[in-house]
Amino acid sequence: MPNINPLTVLVSPTVTEAQKTIEEAISQRKTLLVIGNCWVHYLGRARSKLEPGERILIIKEDGSLLVHRSVGYEPVNWQPPGCVFNVQAKGDVLEVRAVRQKPSESVRVFFDKIRMISALSLVDSGEFSLYASEEDMHKAILLKPSLLEEGFKPISYEKKVEPGFVDVYGVDKNGKLVVVEIKRKTAGKEAALQLAKYIDAVKSKTNHEVRGILVAPSIAKDVQRVLLTLGLEFKSLDPKKCSETLKRSEARKLEVFFTEKT
Amino acid sequence: MPNINPLTVLVSPTVTEAQKTIEEAISQRKTLLVIGNCWVHYLGRARSKLEPGERILIIKEDGSLLVHRSVGYEPVNWQPPGCVFNVQAKGDVLEVRAVRQKPSESVRVFFDKIRMISALSLVDSGEFSLYASEEDMHKAILLKPSLLEEGFKPISYEKKVEPGFVDVYGVDKNGKLVVVEIKRKTAGKEAALQLAKYIDAVKSKTNHEVRGILVAPSIAKDVQRVLLTLGLEFKSLDPKKCSETLKRSEARKLEVFFTEKT
Repeated sequence: MPNINPLTVLVSPTVTEAQKTIEEAISQRKTLLVIGNCWVHYLGRARSKLEPGERILIIKEDGSLLVHRSVGYEPVNWQPPGCVFNVQAKGDVLEVRAVRQKPSESVRVFFDKIRMISALSLVDSGEFSLYASEEDMHKAILLKPSLLEEGFKPISYEKKVEPGFVDVYGVDKNGKLVVVEIKRKTAGKEAALQLAKYIDAVKSKTNHEVRGILVAPSIAKDVQRVLLTLGLEFKSLDPKKCSETLKRSEARKLEVFFTEKT
Repeated sequence: MPNINPLTVLVSPTVTEAQKTIEEAISQRKTLLVIGNCWVHYLGRARSKLEPGERILIIKEDGSLLVHRSVGYEPVNWQPPGCVFNVQAKGDVLEVRAVRQKPSESVRVFFDKIRMISALSLVDSGEFSLYASEEDMHKAILLKPSLLEEGFKPISYEKKVEPGFVDVYGVDKNGKLVVVEIKRKTAGKEAALQLAKYIDAVKSKTNHEVRGILVAPSIAKDVQRVLLTLGLEFKSLDPKKCSETLKRSEARKLEVFFTEKT
């Protein structure tokens, strides 16, 4: 029985062999890995140059491209999905070019020594599910207040007010007090009523105007009407975005630490 | 002569072979690629699950980890540099675990079928240089005004004022007018004087307070003193960050388009 999902592996191919294999893999929309000594030119929104060294080139089935070095979790060069590819041999150098039209940009990867090529169609229909807690959403807003709105400044975190705890409490860009109630799933009527209770408690202690914002990925049917009646606002926020914000901010700090040593 | 930089390639290894090769590659700080059918659990700042499917696992020499699917330029799971790894075989399943302590988080990749393993030390000391134009920096600030400061609202782009063109013109979170002059390299005294001229021209036409901000990756010696004398401010902005902002915002739009089809 023929393998319906064959894997191609070439070790130390010649330029001609490499060109043929890479062209085939791209035209068949396979996932392609090329490991070798290369240099990279990018021209588009900006311009970049990567001097020669051994890296991993990945071309995916959707036409995205990544160039990964031996360190760092982010690619050194990359193109989003939808590239048009061109593979050319010029003497001992193989050029793989990935071009996008809108915006016009191109990444050109030049190999003078290829250690390995691997190509296959990845069979993958698995679902990815990410769960962020309400706690994660609080932290993300404190870390990056613009997730709530531009100009928002958090004052305190889980402030105790009469009926319980306020999730996030701050001032907006016009100096108005803001009380934020966070839900990690679709917010129902109860969430709106709970927020209204907090607002009343805060209002009883201040002469300032107070805004109430319900933060959740979405709201249940009719809750928009309830919010309107109560004078409250809704801000849609994806828990996934919050956990990415937290993770990236952690990783950035580390990345700086590690790349300083390179 | 032995190859000082050997490449390991295993096609369809058994669980035992795979475990040995992966452990060796990690302990020797090599760059490791594993292609196979796997599922992934992440537990840390949030919690995620990826159902079974064929993917590419990359473990880098600095202890970072990436899991890439056949589509999308971003990894589905990842860990920044500095992970501690543990490889375990349980029956026909191989578990590769990458653990970080601060914050505490772990990615566990379970393979039940490995198509290929490849490991080598990438020889790479090439420098990466990115050039962003002043135009790129303008666009990035218009696209993401918080690059300048939280609450900044651009009004017009390259506004014509008497002595020439203002790079970016807007209002800050307190409603003050802001005039921005951008330089992509270290800003000298001339840049500060140019900005002061623009400010004077704007001031002559308004009763409002006007702030002048010089934006550049850095300023030359003594320019801080000149800025102080002229009542101007300096905001350090990396051109590289600007072009990444532009590229990511473009890519995000595309990513949504492509992942909707998956």
